[in-house]
Amino acid sequence: ARGRVTLVGAGPGDPELLTLKGLRALVGADVVLFDDLVPAAVLDLARREAVRINVGKRGYAPSVKQEEITALLVKLAKEGKNVVRLKGGDPMIFGRANEEIKAIRAAGLEAEIVPGVTAALAAAAALEVSLTNRDTARRVQFVTAHTSDGKFPEDIDWRALADSRATTAVYMGNRTLPALSKRLLEEGMDPATPAFLVERASTPQQRIIAGTIHDLPQRVAQETLEGPCLVLIGATLRG
Amino acid sequence: ARGRVTLVGAGPGDPELLTLKGLRALVGADVVLFDDLVPAAVLDLARREAVRINVGKRGYAPSVKQEEITALLVKLAKEGKNVVRLKGGDPMIFGRANEEIKAIRAAGLEAEIVPGVTAALAAAAALEVSLTNRDTARRVQFVTAHTSDGKFPEDIDWRALADSRATTAVYMGNRTLPALSKRLLEEGMDPATPAFLVERASTPQQRIIAGTIHDLPQRVAQETLEGPCLVLIGATLRG
Repeated sequence: ARGRVTLVGAGPGDPELLTLKGLRALVGADVVLFDDLVPAAVLDLARREAVRINVGKRGYAPSVKQEEITALLVKLAKEGKNVVRLKGGDPMIFGRANEEIKAIRAAGLEAEIVPGVTAALAAAAALEVSLTNRDTARRVQFVTAHTSDGKFPEDIDWRALADSRATTAVYMGNRTLPALSKRLLEEGMDPATPAFLVERASTPQQRIIAGTIHDLPQRVAQETLEGPCLVLIGATLRG
Repeated sequence: ARGRVTLVGAGPGDPELLTLKGLRALVGADVVLFDDLVPAAVLDLARREAVRINVGKRGYAPSVKQEEITALLVKLAKEGKNVVRLKGGDPMIFGRANEEIKAIRAAGLEAEIVPGVTAALAAAAALEVSLTNRDTARRVQFVTAHTSDGKFPEDIDWRALADSRATTAVYMGNRTLPALSKRLLEEGMDPATPAFLVERASTPQQRIIAGTIHDLPQRVAQETLEGPCLVLIGATLRG
């Protein structure tokens, strides 16, 4: 029998935010390759007999590591295994799904994608505020907060981020928040623009730090953060 | 007993893309208020005894209609009903959740939010291409394609949309696609930028029309589209 690879979005943290389709894929998996950001409670939904392999990349991954993951995916599927590649949130946002899909196809295998609930939506649910508003925020944008060197990316469209009619979600936005705040203020963003950091959105350990784009960095600096963090910025978040 | 209101994201179309938590809320609902975009197969997951009310707003809703929906939500919850407000995709993106949440709170009730898989992620899964790329697309943005007058919003940050280093998802982007294409080309976007229209993403009727930001409008004009459409634009979509 031929194996197959399914890329599954594990959702933002709460195992109940896995999709029915994601659950079905997990239950049918012989092997699960998972990232650090995948909640343990989601991983528990796989069969007891399933082999679980942590391919997490704490910090910043050298590219050879990603190549090892893709090689392992292909090897296991070629052996006839049903492989689930479990990624935090949704597989098509800020993961490196393209590299894995290309390798799977190059091996003559098919990749199925099961989308998931991405962290920004869980953070919005936590704040109980919509990310868009039909009059004042018709654009919502997601950005990553660091490049491979750990700094906020310089080649980003800062004016697009500072746009007062957009809502911005910054993934993994904790460490680079002071630099982001400084730059957005320089771009002319209103210092009173609401900004929130949501740690471990959708889990029992969920924590919300509320402020403005001006004072959120100092508010966050007073806290000890350990889980995944998402920063939301935008005038419409006043609710 | 006091009723409650749960805003549930129904996901993009495939009922299997509902979350476990969303399913639980549906199964516990006395009444389900749903939009036109909610797939019938998701609605079928509610109990047979549950009252289903279509509050769909085909086309563009006059604001009085939204007030009727919120008034109905509050009335039912005050009667002690478990009310589920079922919205296509995710409740916090391009719905009018804020107005409903405010009304629920103003009535002294609580609103729970269950996030869902938003259409852009289902479209990315359909294309089997990531919306982001660590080197070339660190920003992804979602916009709505029309305002209350049915035209593409004029007060949008066009430069942000034409940014070659971002990926853009246009919700309900079918009718206004010619205007969007024209404007993005005027803003200097490379005419060869890949662009896709995905109709009924994640369902058996899913259809993909592939092209570029230059030729997608004429390709789409040759087809008859009836289901919800999402347009994806961006250099990284070459895969």
